[in-house]
Amino acid sequence: MLGYLGPEGTFTHQALLSFHREEARPYSSVIQALDAVRNREVESVLVPLENSMEGGVSATLDNLASGQRLMITREVLLDVQFDLCVRPGTKFDDIRHVITHPHAAAQTRNWIAQNLPKADLTEGGSTAAAAKEVSNPDSKYDAAVCAAVAGDLYGLDHIARNIADNPGAVTRFVLVGLPGRPPAPTGSDKTTLAVHLREDQPGALLEMLQQFAMRGVNLCRIESRPTKEGLGSYYFSIDVEAHILDARMRETAKGLHRIMGEIIFLGSYPRADHVRPKIGRGFSDKDFKAAKNWFIELVNPEERR
Amino acid sequence: MLGYLGPEGTFTHQALLSFHREEARPYSSVIQALDAVRNREVESVLVPLENSMEGGVSATLDNLASGQRLMITREVLLDVQFDLCVRPGTKFDDIRHVITHPHAAAQTRNWIAQNLPKADLTEGGSTAAAAKEVSNPDSKYDAAVCAAVAGDLYGLDHIARNIADNPGAVTRFVLVGLPGRPPAPTGSDKTTLAVHLREDQPGALLEMLQQFAMRGVNLCRIESRPTKEGLGSYYFSIDVEAHILDARMRETAKGLHRIMGEIIFLGSYPRADHVRPKIGRGFSDKDFKAAKNWFIELVNPEERR
Amino acid sequence: MLGYLGPEGTFTHQALLSFHREEARPYSSVIQALDAVRNREVESVLVPLENSMEGGVSATLDNLASGQRLMITREVLLDVQFDLCVRPGTKFDDIRHVITHPHAAAQTRNWIAQNLPKADLTEGGSTAAAAKEVSNPDSKYDAAVCAAVAGDLYGLDHIARNIADNPGAVTRFVLVGLPGRPPAPTGSDKTTLAVHLREDQPGALLEMLQQFAMRGVNLCRIESRPTKEGLGSYYFSIDVEAHILDARMRETAKGLHRIMGEIIFLGSYPRADHVRPKIGRGFSDKDFKAAKNWFIELVNPEERR
Amino acid sequence: MLGYLGPEGTFTHQALLSFHREEARPYSSVIQALDAVRNREVESVLVPLENSMEGGVSATLDNLASGQRLMITREVLLDVQFDLCVRPGTKFDDIRHVITHPHAAAQTRNWIAQNLPKADLTEGGSTAAAAKEVSNPDSKYDAAVCAAVAGDLYGLDHIARNIADNPGAVTRFVLVGLPGRPPAPTGSDKTTLAVHLREDQPGALLEMLQQFAMRGVNLCRIESRPTKEGLGSYYFSIDVEAHILDARMRETAKGLHRIMGEIIFLGSYPRADHVRPKIGRGFSDKDFKAAKNWFIELVNPEERR
Repeated sequence: MLGYLGPEGTFTHQALLSFHREEARPYSSVIQALDAVRNREVESVLVPLENSMEGGVSATLDNLASGQRLMITREVLLDVQFDLCVRPGTKFDDIRHVITHPHAAAQTRNWIAQNLPKADLTEGGSTAAAAKEVSNPDSKYDAAVCAAVAGDLYGLDHIARNIADNPGAVTRFVLVGLPGRPPAPTGSDKTTLAVHLREDQPGALLEMLQQFAMRGVNLCRIESRPTKEGLGSYYFSIDVEAHILDARMRETAKGLHRIMGEIIFLGSYPRADHVRPKIGRGFSDKDFKAAKNWFIELVNPEERR
Repeated sequence: MLGYLGPEGTFTHQALLSFHREEARPYSSVIQALDAVRNREVESVLVPLENSMEGGVSATLDNLASGQRLMITREVLLDVQFDLCVRPGTKFDDIRHVITHPHAAAQTRNWIAQNLPKADLTEGGSTAAAAKEVSNPDSKYDAAVCAAVAGDLYGLDHIARNIADNPGAVTRFVLVGLPGRPPAPTGSDKTTLAVHLREDQPGALLEMLQQFAMRGVNLCRIESRPTKEGLGSYYFSIDVEAHILDARMRETAKGLHRIMGEIIFLGSYPRADHVRPKIGRGFSDKDFKAAKNWFIELVNPEERR
Repeated sequence: MLGYLGPEGTFTHQALLSFHREEARPYSSVIQALDAVRNREVESVLVPLENSMEGGVSATLDNLASGQRLMITREVLLDVQFDLCVRPGTKFDDIRHVITHPHAAAQTRNWIAQNLPKADLTEGGSTAAAAKEVSNPDSKYDAAVCAAVAGDLYGLDHIARNIADNPGAVTRFVLVGLPGRPPAPTGSDKTTLAVHLREDQPGALLEMLQQFAMRGVNLCRIESRPTKEGLGSYYFSIDVEAHILDARMRETAKGLHRIMGEIIFLGSYPRADHVRPKIGRGFSDKDFKAAKNWFIELVNPEERR
Repeated sequence: MLGYLGPEGTFTHQALLSFHREEARPYSSVIQALDAVRNREVESVLVPLENSMEGGVSATLDNLASGQRLMITREVLLDVQFDLCVRPGTKFDDIRHVITHPHAAAQTRNWIAQNLPKADLTEGGSTAAAAKEVSNPDSKYDAAVCAAVAGDLYGLDHIARNIADNPGAVTRFVLVGLPGRPPAPTGSDKTTLAVHLREDQPGALLEMLQQFAMRGVNLCRIESRPTKEGLGSYYFSIDVEAHILDARMRETAKGLHRIMGEIIFLGSYPRADHVRPKIGRGFSDKDFKAAKNWFIELVNPEERR
């Protein structure tokens, strides 16, 4: 059984349906979803990790980095589109009170300001919950900004479609399970890490980045997140264009472990976009193997042919 | 006249009162507050920039980085403490519906889970609005998680005090005005920048950090934020331990401008904690001046004394 | 009056004749030649700096770096060709004793081993002195390895021509005068520096190289030379592809002065090969100027147009 | 049987006697000595590698780097002291013609200029040969600058002792044999390498140095030497404070092999000065082992205890 960040009708639900049509269990928060894996209620859960408009999803990043260890095994990308949905019968000009999730609010702010200048906008727990709220005939809210599926689910009218200020927003979701052997490398993989810098090392971020650069490992995301121990104390959440079993990433991981003290491996998994990394000269598995063989012969000259 | 992220009773309000007891105008969103400066409704506004628990305040970071240029002239630090406030007469065991801002929810999640296991938690627009909502006798909400001042403002009982899961949380606010000449260096200053990496430069983040490191400029905050142009496209929001007029920062700013293409200066201002930076050998204003004088004599030998 | 590393008939003499046909004064050692400038006996002297086969000329490098300051104003490149010269009447098979300068010996070693297997090779002070020695009928030496001009000067027969093991050897000479204003930039210049690393900085060489790399200044020669204070104590003799007045080199020189403590400027002068440097994005004089102007406007907003 | 750079009476001979009192074979040049190992005439030879006054010994560096592969197994340090030696009966004031090796000339230049202002100085093949020459009653040379042992060997009078301009000069010799398994690590070892930079990589020297720095391997000597393929083409001769079998050096060697294309291992051997390297945090063998074990468990979770 899989789980997901619910309720039904959220974008996460929609993303889950893209690869899993069987029954799945919604959870009302990222933390509850992740804990459900830890408690073995479900095998894996789908949760949002980042959004091209709003950045990283803090709850997911922080819980994965600091909670009991879990592992990402898959990523899913979803184009984010918002509809403005109302109870049947509501007229556009009558809309006064709109409800949605803060991220959806942020991404439709301009549209609403221009098209509904008299409306106020309330931020609630999810776009699906907003749709459900509006479906209640007694609700003080006239309209919800939500996913198309949520409007359908709750029998609302789509009084305006695709109202995002920046069409082309994408949300990235990850499927998270218990730690185990990662999926095999495909040649187009990502690895997610959380790295705590040793506090007593100035220039530690630079040093960390050099560990990647030195082995030709490209970063595709890096975010600093507070460690919650005070302003100025951060950890870094990082995605790289390599599988943990790729030689360049193996060596990087070991180098980070030696230098940084603590490095948290959060999974290696196929890229949803199937892009293959450009691997510079000296950084391919073949190059690492050749160097290893060269070294063995070097220090064991009697074994030379 | 100053403005702030309202409504009355928010932590921002409380932070404003720490240095400004005169009348001030609340705005209902960060963007409205910042736009009020741009529209010359108020001279400056106080808005939150980051929180030791939740990280950067995206709305502030993104609007400062991409909107019409503004300038930070002051920072304020505030210890964040939450109270659980109820309408007079409500008993602890009767609390079923709690409302607060998502950040306050995140920071009291464990306390509420342990002490109010049967209660549901709704996330609304601000802690002050939550307190106001609860003060309404008809509200379906029984309790608000809010600042002490908000409880007082709306006549609520503080049924539990200081309920944050991690006592010691701090929020950092900034006073933002129109661009102008920065406040003079004090020897204990910060500078805030937003830097867009040129997309066609791999290793650009490393290169950017080297610009700081090479001139002995320490970073105290670095956050990647999406440019909203698609996953994988970021800008960096950065605070450094130097004033823009300190020689090491002058040269760094010019170096970044040359190498990075676009660099946005968001202000230099005194540090609220009065900590003075450790300046390494070769990086003081005196060292820069000595090098300049040495060079002038070097290439103008006839001017040597 | 110019001087050069003599005696007459040396490669240095030949290099001098390539741009100066008037009278010139030979000196019997590099040090005597350089001191003749310091003593104002001559205006400038031509001395060898490096050779594509043997590397840097230690006497020149060390005396320029540690003696009373002088300045390079010109470089000259000369293809090095050696002839085997004998007294008229000597037959090839009778050659038993050959004399030449150690560098010439090194560069014709294989030819002599193959063609004169029975001959011994003595290393003397210069190829010209070797030719002069051989021209003495009483000399015990039968043949000299020398420049063609030396054979001619002393009336010897060229019993074999162009006997260098590696044809294509090049020696680089520099014209050295008293410190003064360097020749104006031509767009194809070199600058010569000597840099002493601060002994208490591990990684100081890396740090020094980063100063160049950070400003897009390419090195064309770097040699470590002992400071004569014990094994493990070195200074670096460096040529770069830039004029000291090029903006990227101005900033590099000042950066080195701040970080490294001691940096010795030994001259900027046109490249003999007229190659123009590739200047990366952000490193041209125009880029430096644009950054400077941007900064001035930034911190003096009232001066903006 | 061992060999050495002869003739008898050289500093190399003196250095050899410090650890080997049995018969040994002198060779008249570094190249002949090294070739005698390649031809299996002798097991190993002692040759000079560098001198604290004159820097690297080019013939040794270049032949080791470009000739058929050999391996250094030992280093010997010798304080260099020069005597001025004359035929018995020669008076100080009669000395007109002095002969010595160019390096000895360079290191006694000032003493001779001050004490023998009327004498000329001829540079010959070795200090021992100079002593032998002077011992010939028919020689035109009156005095030799040589090692004390050479004066004794050829029955000369030590008319002045310890005449070096800089007392405290040290020469470093290496014992060179055929490639084989290196001597075991002692905790105080050096490794000698020759590294050719790929010509098509700008910044290649910086990149090479980062390979060492990243793994905490300190350099104690780096010299650029021409590849003899034209001005501007260099290889680097390097000594580091680590044994090739130390984990930090193993990884560095493999990294250099991958990135640089060609790297020549010239031996790991105990340091003559017994200094132990300071090994930074994360760079000890124990740290490398811990990282390796951590990684194995990470990707083979089922093997966890």
